[in-house]
Amino acid sequence: MKKNFKKVNAAILVIGNEILSGRTQDLNVSFISKWLNDNNGISVEEVRIIPDNEKIIIRTTKTLKEKYNYVFTTGGIGPTHDDITAKSISKVFKVKYNYHTEAFKILEKYYGKRNFNDGRKKMSKMPFGSKLIYNPSSAAPGFKIKNVFCLPGVPLILKSMIHNCSRYLNKGSKMISDSINLITVESNIANELGKIQKKFSKSVDVGSYPFFRLGRVGVSIVLRSQNKHKISLCKKEILKKIVLKKKIKKV
Amino acid sequence: MKKNFKKVNAAILVIGNEILSGRTQDLNVSFISKWLNDNNGISVEEVRIIPDNEKIIIRTTKTLKEKYNYVFTTGGIGPTHDDITAKSISKVFKVKYNYHTEAFKILEKYYGKRNFNDGRKKMSKMPFGSKLIYNPSSAAPGFKIKNVFCLPGVPLILKSMIHNCSRYLNKGSKMISDSINLITVESNIANELGKIQKKFSKSVDVGSYPFFRLGRVGVSIVLRSQNKHKISLCKKEILKKIVLKKKIKKV
Repeated sequence: MKKNFKKVNAAILVIGNEILSGRTQDLNVSFISKWLNDNNGISVEEVRIIPDNEKIIIRTTKTLKEKYNYVFTTGGIGPTHDDITAKSISKVFKVKYNYHTEAFKILEKYYGKRNFNDGRKKMSKMPFGSKLIYNPSSAAPGFKIKNVFCLPGVPLILKSMIHNCSRYLNKGSKMISDSINLITVESNIANELGKIQKKFSKSVDVGSYPFFRLGRVGVSIVLRSQNKHKISLCKKEILKKIVLKKKIKKV
Repeated sequence: MKKNFKKVNAAILVIGNEILSGRTQDLNVSFISKWLNDNNGISVEEVRIIPDNEKIIIRTTKTLKEKYNYVFTTGGIGPTHDDITAKSISKVFKVKYNYHTEAFKILEKYYGKRNFNDGRKKMSKMPFGSKLIYNPSSAAPGFKIKNVFCLPGVPLILKSMIHNCSRYLNKGSKMISDSINLITVESNIANELGKIQKKFSKSVDVGSYPFFRLGRVGVSIVLRSQNKHKISLCKKEILKKIVLKKKIKKV
């Protein structure tokens, strides 16, 4: 009996001059990607990093939202002039950019009426029809409209709230992975590994990644598939035809 | 007298399933971006992360090489089956994918004739007409063809060889930056900072980034421009109209 595996995919759109210039190291892509796969069976198939520029945000979001089931943006939803994600996304969907009643109340309560200045109020402005993504760490919510999810850029805050996206996601089949770490170099096993990948080309994605740690040079062979059984077959073949045959040490 | 500032831009194309899946944290984007700006006055304006898929590599490279002065790819130039960057780039430029005589010699010497197997030989296959980017750490060279530079994905190796790209680059005017770190929150200064950005909209890019370190919450205001004098004027205005006026502590 053939099992049905459901594919759901996503793109991540990192918005921010500070990431592009190299001033800030992005940490959100790997976190979101792992979270999407492990918790929702959703594979990230493309990432783009773009500047805080309205035209570019609009154009890129339009492209990605058509191409993938979901788009996750990070950055640009704070109170300052360079936070233009919410306004830009409103233009993508051709809806009004205005105060979200519930978000406004959350922030008013958080800051107190006296301290609720314009910058803070701005954080409750969103595309009309947005659903909130609650933020337990610093109150200002993210939002989702149609298949686009807008999250903040600060990794600590993003991590605290991403689970609140789950309720809006159609889940796919989780990509399962297994790995074999060998004390060898890629060029020693490339030929045999290529043959095994060919054999499993329809079911398992075989990746090969050199590593250097603790003074050791090695190769991590990573097997990825939605089908656990196929991973196990592929692993056996690698162990037999490469590791055992070439007497390579595993770690 | 008006100074002429020369703009040269680039895109980075990260090729690799392991980055997309979140298994590996990319460290090359910020390194390349800083190196390009600091050493060559070249601004990175877009980054894309895509899978090890020939069609996608070809399509994306074609788009980026038309849009930007330079494209830097990372990943996919090793000896294994999933290293398909060189072959794909050959197809982008419609040139043959074959052994590069000098690269072949370098690798043959490095591994010794007896150990120079097919996987190792593969690392000398490149698009016809490529110029080598020498690799002092593990021999296998990167290459450049027209305005596309192909580098390895392993950060240690990439760092050891990137300076060898310099000879092929037309340099631009360096983007200079300065920053002011304040013990405050963004929403406290957003309004005034927005006004100052508006005033300097044509010359200085004013960014505002919250930070959390050593138990302190703060905002880093980053000023970027090719014009040092304008940065200095903008900084003075921020110090006077925000820091002094609101009695905010600097760090």
